[in-house]
Amino acid sequence: MEDPFKYAHEREDEIIWMSQNTNELETTPIIQREIMNAVKSKKYALYPHQKGLLGMRKTLLKDLGLEEDFGAIITNGAIEASYFLTRAILEPGDNVIASDPSFMPIHHQVRLCDAEMKEIYVYKDPYHMTVDEVNEAVDDSTKAILLIDPLNPLGSSYTRSEVKGISEIAEDNDLWVIDDITYRDFAYEHTLTTEFVPERTFLIYSFSKNCGFAGMRLGAVVIPDHMFEEISRWRSNPLSANILAQVGAKVALETKDQWLPKMIEQSRKNQEIIKEAVDKTDGIHLPVFPSNTNMFVIDIQETGLNPDEIQEVLLKEHNIFVRGGTYVSTKAGSNFVRVSFTVPEPQVRKFAEIFPEVIEQMR
Amino acid sequence: MEDPFKYAHEREDEIIWMSQNTNELETTPIIQREIMNAVKSKKYALYPHQKGLLGMRKTLLKDLGLEEDFGAIITNGAIEASYFLTRAILEPGDNVIASDPSFMPIHHQVRLCDAEMKEIYVYKDPYHMTVDEVNEAVDDSTKAILLIDPLNPLGSSYTRSEVKGISEIAEDNDLWVIDDITYRDFAYEHTLTTEFVPERTFLIYSFSKNCGFAGMRLGAVVIPDHMFEEISRWRSNPLSANILAQVGAKVALETKDQWLPKMIEQSRKNQEIIKEAVDKTDGIHLPVFPSNTNMFVIDIQETGLNPDEIQEVLLKEHNIFVRGGTYVSTKAGSNFVRVSFTVPEPQVRKFAEIFPEVIEQMR
Repeated sequence: MEDPFKYAHEREDEIIWMSQNTNELETTPIIQREIMNAVKSKKYALYPHQKGLLGMRKTLLKDLGLEEDFGAIITNGAIEASYFLTRAILEPGDNVIASDPSFMPIHHQVRLCDAEMKEIYVYKDPYHMTVDEVNEAVDDSTKAILLIDPLNPLGSSYTRSEVKGISEIAEDNDLWVIDDITYRDFAYEHTLTTEFVPERTFLIYSFSKNCGFAGMRLGAVVIPDHMFEEISRWRSNPLSANILAQVGAKVALETKDQWLPKMIEQSRKNQEIIKEAVDKTDGIHLPVFPSNTNMFVIDIQETGLNPDEIQEVLLKEHNIFVRGGTYVSTKAGSNFVRVSFTVPEPQVRKFAEIFPEVIEQMR
Repeated sequence: MEDPFKYAHEREDEIIWMSQNTNELETTPIIQREIMNAVKSKKYALYPHQKGLLGMRKTLLKDLGLEEDFGAIITNGAIEASYFLTRAILEPGDNVIASDPSFMPIHHQVRLCDAEMKEIYVYKDPYHMTVDEVNEAVDDSTKAILLIDPLNPLGSSYTRSEVKGISEIAEDNDLWVIDDITYRDFAYEHTLTTEFVPERTFLIYSFSKNCGFAGMRLGAVVIPDHMFEEISRWRSNPLSANILAQVGAKVALETKDQWLPKMIEQSRKNQEIIKEAVDKTDGIHLPVFPSNTNMFVIDIQETGLNPDEIQEVLLKEHNIFVRGGTYVSTKAGSNFVRVSFTVPEPQVRKFAEIFPEVIEQMR
């Protein structure tokens, strides 16, 4: 299939979007209202403050339970943050430790720096890097650890003790930790590496998943004060990020206790619905359950099917868009499809009904 | 003054924003309505298509009178486009020819590539680079010419014959042309370098000034087909740009003949109003008039005043925000203040009244 995204966008309103971990669940109408007001008053005619909407940095740090020793750059999506961050900290010949499966676009960003990825294969129990594996992977050229926690695409996450262990490896070997916390709000529990190595940690933050803002393209990088000026020098967008996105994100964080718990509850209910369908289908299973993100992978190895073909049949015949695994894994991509479930419950129910049928038919 | 931007944003609604070439003039209510509709239907929950909103590339190329031999990447502001473009085409030790005064953030981006800027001093008649000057500046390490046309901050622009001459230099010396056309729509006449060297030209496009979208952070880079894949590899944001911005920008281009002429007329009327005030004030003058952009500089050398102090007095005492020249020139920055005039006419009239008084008082 030449470009499934083009196909899907051409039918945007008919498609069930379980392909990109976007979040269409209810948050609060306050967010939408604030964005509307900003459009009405044409806030978009003026540049935002270079340092981000006034108060944004404080609101973000507060959301993370951090104190005043950090700066933040508001970015056009989290992916922009990792792009210039990797450029700022890496030299040719350096390497970065990360998992496979992983969010591969960051691996590409590392390679653009003429640096290498040392990928630890984690499509096996416990479905994320272990402290020992990270320790063994360190060599003289290692410059950073990319910790995606919780992990896209598997839905696994790291315990406090594992986060501590990985942080200590960074400390002992003089490494940076790129702590990508895009899915943090979906986790049952979560620990920031700033708790152990605040001066070595860069937090990559996204508003795409928790706030349902994927199309707003808004993220941030939280930077320890002593590195703020050096990293800022490399930023790709000194004129800051979309003002409507910032207005919405700020009020989203400020009202989080009003909407997050209910949203998470629905997300968890949705994954239960899918689990039930998977459990009753031969040859497929969920390697990680429950997921600490708004997605998980469905292992299809025993069916002998090709995930890209499953993706195509679901999309073309049922308007359901999921992703084959190759996008998120070099080595394990043919083993699974990735499914995100922060879509309205009726859409999840439709998927739960159709998916087992499709698997049966294709075998 | 520690951070004039913070000061101004804290009083956002009281300030007359003549500082950043933003455009608050009327375009068409259709644009705002389309953005509203996109907010209402929560278009922002889904990622935009990676290649940009469907139809966007075609609309953009049509706006530029270009045919099918070009690709376009929609970016988070034009400044993101030049950031990854310079990274893609420059090697350490290369140099890029450009003017001083100039839009200096691009010069910074070049230096991040360990490449050098060869700046041609243009704060003298004809207030832009001449073909001869560009030709003399070329050496064995020259990789590109940065042609900002029309030129921020001076408001000067290049004739068709000059654009042809500079293009021929690129051809003869195997150089790229980075043709930054951010202010093209304000020009009395304008020629793209694609007319002469389509396969060597990268067009940097912005929606900030013509559409009044500075806070939307939307731009693009138009790339000849043979280079599209190579440049795309370096893009900083493979997940595309804000969807509300794209929805607004597309309809803005589609309806341009309904709003652009009237907007330009008001912009030109506004510069006349300021010229009149400058003409009757001793010791100041407009080196370039009429401007081919939505700004010009007011030369203050004869007054002996410091432009940063003028900026501060105007801002603090009159809520009028203009910029001292140091932001846009290494060598001539103390000679002028830069003033943009795409603000409502009553605000321009206030500036025209206050500015001569401030100059008199400060002398």
